[in-house]
Amino acid sequence: MSLLVVGSTAFDTVETPHGTAVDCLGGSSTYFALAARLFTKVRLVSVVGQDFPAKHRQLLEANGIDLTGVETKPGKTFRWHGRYSADMNSRETIDVQLNTFGDFKPVVPAAFRDTPFVFLANGSPATQASVLDQMQAPRFCVADTMDLWIERERDGLLALLRRIDGLIVNDSEVKQLTGKTNLIQAGRACLALGPKLVIVKKGEHGSFVFSNFFHYALPAYPTETVVDPTGAGDSFAGGFMGYLANCNSISLWNMKRAVAYGTCAASLNVEGFGVQRLAEATLETLERRYQELQQFVASP
Amino acid sequence: MSLLVVGSTAFDTVETPHGTAVDCLGGSSTYFALAARLFTKVRLVSVVGQDFPAKHRQLLEANGIDLTGVETKPGKTFRWHGRYSADMNSRETIDVQLNTFGDFKPVVPAAFRDTPFVFLANGSPATQASVLDQMQAPRFCVADTMDLWIERERDGLLALLRRIDGLIVNDSEVKQLTGKTNLIQAGRACLALGPKLVIVKKGEHGSFVFSNFFHYALPAYPTETVVDPTGAGDSFAGGFMGYLANCNSISLWNMKRAVAYGTCAASLNVEGFGVQRLAEATLETLERRYQELQQFVASP
Repeated sequence: MSLLVVGSTAFDTVETPHGTAVDCLGGSSTYFALAARLFTKVRLVSVVGQDFPAKHRQLLEANGIDLTGVETKPGKTFRWHGRYSADMNSRETIDVQLNTFGDFKPVVPAAFRDTPFVFLANGSPATQASVLDQMQAPRFCVADTMDLWIERERDGLLALLRRIDGLIVNDSEVKQLTGKTNLIQAGRACLALGPKLVIVKKGEHGSFVFSNFFHYALPAYPTETVVDPTGAGDSFAGGFMGYLANCNSISLWNMKRAVAYGTCAASLNVEGFGVQRLAEATLETLERRYQELQQFVASP
Repeated sequence: MSLLVVGSTAFDTVETPHGTAVDCLGGSSTYFALAARLFTKVRLVSVVGQDFPAKHRQLLEANGIDLTGVETKPGKTFRWHGRYSADMNSRETIDVQLNTFGDFKPVVPAAFRDTPFVFLANGSPATQASVLDQMQAPRFCVADTMDLWIERERDGLLALLRRIDGLIVNDSEVKQLTGKTNLIQAGRACLALGPKLVIVKKGEHGSFVFSNFFHYALPAYPTETVVDPTGAGDSFAGGFMGYLANCNSISLWNMKRAVAYGTCAASLNVEGFGVQRLAEATLETLERRYQELQQFVASP
């Protein structure tokens, strides 16, 4: 089934111990879409400026991503410049230019409004809610968020949590959101806020899935060379939602498999700068990694 | 088969957000032995002072732990006083009094020298090597170490690594030992230093097992209430070695099961102050937790 993602498209300049990549294609919706397209048709709603080159459009379209919902506005595309620490576990933002993304008011094209699977990439809860307002009844809707919104738009976020099926956040965010310092307590408390599913990303330590019916922990794929961690979370979400959108049912086992595919997509993504590794990946690449991950975590 | 542990016995004063416990029974060998005794006969080599009370001896002996190798020396027992941070992820040492443990020269009783399974709890590499010198050919010998020895007695530690079967360390230690910032690279590099097995503990994030034949990742048991993290690593090692000593063969699957039992022993231990939870645990308690952990990590 088709999958809609609403989020940013950006030019990223990234400095890591492996080098610097200037103005590479980035943004939450781009990473998400390039991971998810391995499994299903992806519809993208985003905004770019007049400087967004045809080659990037072509790359996305060649991967079957429907860009009908990508608006081109006067001005420049969102730009981000970041620098990672030596161990890649923290980063500082050197520069942000929101440009056309600054007042992004997503408009879901009429033909997209019946999309059954929806991912609301990181954005203000008000913007995320405005997307839901435009949708007919999605079958499965998942959102991302960040510390900024938890701190500044808490009420809006809490209202959104009651409208979505799943939340994907990282460990510090779920602790901040719930006020619990123990991650298991935080996951449970987050479920009580509305979503039926809470997926907590822990970077190199893998992820936890909380639901009222099961809990699940999956270690990360054992990546030896992290070149650029940017977009890991959105690639994870893309692999997760893409796999699930392609399943007949949203069962416990399919959700677990989807988390594993998300894990594999994220690990693939961080092996290169920008979206390079995801863009060149085939489903076979991901399947091989999935099998390796299953072996790595296989319990007696 | 029987299992020998050589390490410290201590009085710990521990401050955590859950309260303060004064002078509770602690020390690496004590935590280890009380976890391992659930599976097998444990022989303990340690040192205490004249202030070590009969009730502690009785507790250990009632749990089938052979104290023939525990020397009582003039003076006081090793004392440690620590304080944990609010999230329990760091601690500061308020006071250490090595006392009789200061010049601990472990003497392995003649009747213990043929013990097939040996655990060298944290101590100087020279002390650990002196134990190996006294043993006949152990079937499976595992050691723990710490940042202090990696920094100050590197040569001695490297020599020890060539004599043991397995090393249990935490993630920061294995990175420090190998100079690798990526944990997977660090694990592999550590294998190249000698041990056939490297187990990396990551606290709440679980553990990794590295060997030349397989790699394995296991999340931690989802503990909701951490009362006192002291001794988690030694309880882990005790569960791991105890289970393995009780197996017919040291196979891949038995090692994986042993890691899971170690994980469960550690999670049980941190739910109470000192050794309280381990001392009152039965094999049934641990089995129940093992089944829960298997469910938590069960992959499709």
